[in-house]
Amino acid sequence: MTIPSLSNDSISSLSKLSYADIQSIVADDFEIMDKQVFGSLNSKVQLVMSVSQHVINAGGKRMRPLITLLCARMLNDEPSRQAMHLAAITEMLHTATLVHDDVIDESGQRRGKPTANATWDNATAVLVGDYLIARAFNLLVGFQSLPLLQLFSDGTCDIAEGEVLQLQHQHNPAATEADYLSIIDGKTSRLFMMATQGAAILQDQTQYLSALADFGQHFGNAFQIIDDVLDYSGDSELMGKNLGDDLAEGKPTLPTIKALELLKDSDKDNYEQLRIAVQTGKTPNASELIDLVRHSGSLAYCTKRALEETRLAQQALSHLPDNRYRKGLYQLTELASARLL
Amino acid sequence: MTIPSLSNDSISSLSKLSYADIQSIVADDFEIMDKQVFGSLNSKVQLVMSVSQHVINAGGKRMRPLITLLCARMLNDEPSRQAMHLAAITEMLHTATLVHDDVIDESGQRRGKPTANATWDNATAVLVGDYLIARAFNLLVGFQSLPLLQLFSDGTCDIAEGEVLQLQHQHNPAATEADYLSIIDGKTSRLFMMATQGAAILQDQTQYLSALADFGQHFGNAFQIIDDVLDYSGDSELMGKNLGDDLAEGKPTLPTIKALELLKDSDKDNYEQLRIAVQTGKTPNASELIDLVRHSGSLAYCTKRALEETRLAQQALSHLPDNRYRKGLYQLTELASARLL
Repeated sequence: MTIPSLSNDSISSLSKLSYADIQSIVADDFEIMDKQVFGSLNSKVQLVMSVSQHVINAGGKRMRPLITLLCARMLNDEPSRQAMHLAAITEMLHTATLVHDDVIDESGQRRGKPTANATWDNATAVLVGDYLIARAFNLLVGFQSLPLLQLFSDGTCDIAEGEVLQLQHQHNPAATEADYLSIIDGKTSRLFMMATQGAAILQDQTQYLSALADFGQHFGNAFQIIDDVLDYSGDSELMGKNLGDDLAEGKPTLPTIKALELLKDSDKDNYEQLRIAVQTGKTPNASELIDLVRHSGSLAYCTKRALEETRLAQQALSHLPDNRYRKGLYQLTELASARLL
Repeated sequence: MTIPSLSNDSISSLSKLSYADIQSIVADDFEIMDKQVFGSLNSKVQLVMSVSQHVINAGGKRMRPLITLLCARMLNDEPSRQAMHLAAITEMLHTATLVHDDVIDESGQRRGKPTANATWDNATAVLVGDYLIARAFNLLVGFQSLPLLQLFSDGTCDIAEGEVLQLQHQHNPAATEADYLSIIDGKTSRLFMMATQGAAILQDQTQYLSALADFGQHFGNAFQIIDDVLDYSGDSELMGKNLGDDLAEGKPTLPTIKALELLKDSDKDNYEQLRIAVQTGKTPNASELIDLVRHSGSLAYCTKRALEETRLAQQALSHLPDNRYRKGLYQLTELASARLL
């Protein structure tokens, strides 16, 4: 793998970094941010508090806020309370979308832990998700920055639109790679872009907005493509979910879209089987279908596409200040593409 | 009924006004606003557009935006594009909450028309509701007014909290009138306050914020109490929903809360029957239970409370500029309390 734009020296010295190592580059900021995610909830309604705390506790690695913290330090290496606060808000918004996603997908577990809809019910999950969206905006207003509010309100529209577009293509075996890219651009990459660009707005370094947008978008794309590949090839125990979930929901992700394309002319029978599975979401023969996708050559294509997106994200970094925070971001894309996160 | 603070002359000349008459006081503004509710949707996702248009079409009388338009004109009698735009956003936010409410209550109809969750499904309704919330904020940012953003983001948190508080008290026969007031303060009156106060912020007439808050809050309270009374006494065909829906959902509204209080010492058997109905949401004997509430004396109490709230709203108007728009607002509270809307 050739790595563009960053010197080999700086790469080799970082190439063994784990997620915890990257996190430790901004350890103090991260710790404060993590507390603020909880501290920013101040509802007088007890049920709002307990559900919000549950879903934030069940949260993952806080990758989006880590991106904000690294970007903020990359642009201005001073501890910034505002950056930590913005990072916490990004996580809150992310959590809100997960809570609604779990309602929509009727998921009982996320990362091996019971979801809000499973622990309480759909009604509670919908409304607490609404609270988290509203609260995120409420906290954003506190920055008194219209450009920041513009970024986040544009972005939140795009996220919702990406999610609806995904629904629109559910059970559609004719969905194309372009459709897929539009979906993930909204539902995933947009928040990565908000996490990166938000830092530049806070640090008043708007000359970097375009490079940060590129970085966020391509990193987000790579991240989502790999996530979708793992639904066919991952370790279900590690992921805390089952293999083939997307197919069982009739979601045409890149692995299926490409498999259908590859099978269409070469293997009519299997093409038909997979097409019907997407169309109906009925997969009594799930493991057979997963094998079908695996052996179609689709996953190799998806991995190649993810690496291309990773490379583009890394290229965007070359337009940004060269320091250890940039190296941390670089390494984050490496970890994500190797899925060692 | 004695009417405080406004002269008898101005009342009698208005006392026959219908909703359409009040609307006609700001006819031009209203027409533009109504178009803007649709025109403000600009999603590139076809499903977002069709669902949003459906729910906005199925919308009601546009009372909240009418309040904004009347308030704006009351404070400054010039056509204000900004006020029309803000009124449209208020309706958009209101629609978003209705879409999520219908998911939560599993409602198939609203005002006699099929809901979004019934026409599409829960997933679509949750996500399009999210889009409408995000889009409302996105449009609000366009005003470049931090006080307006503060008002609306505080308010949207309160609305979500009021809805969750309602869930928290579902199936709770021990809910008190104070609990009920906290619920309706969030879920209903807060948006009325945003509709009134938003107009003052736009018109730079912040000396009226407090009177407008009082007006919005008490009008909202009156409106919701009457709505809850109608669930026991209304014409189900006219309302486009069934009588006793709240009880069947185990929602302790003021009519039930007061009926339980009145029956507790005087009629143990019926008290127990009603208490269990709230607790379980099981009402095989719905019409009996409705009669029980009706004959308990509770509805008379609720009507008295609604009239008190109406009177307080009207008193708040006396601190605002006296003109035909104020008279329109006054008449709106009269219509609402007589439920001729």
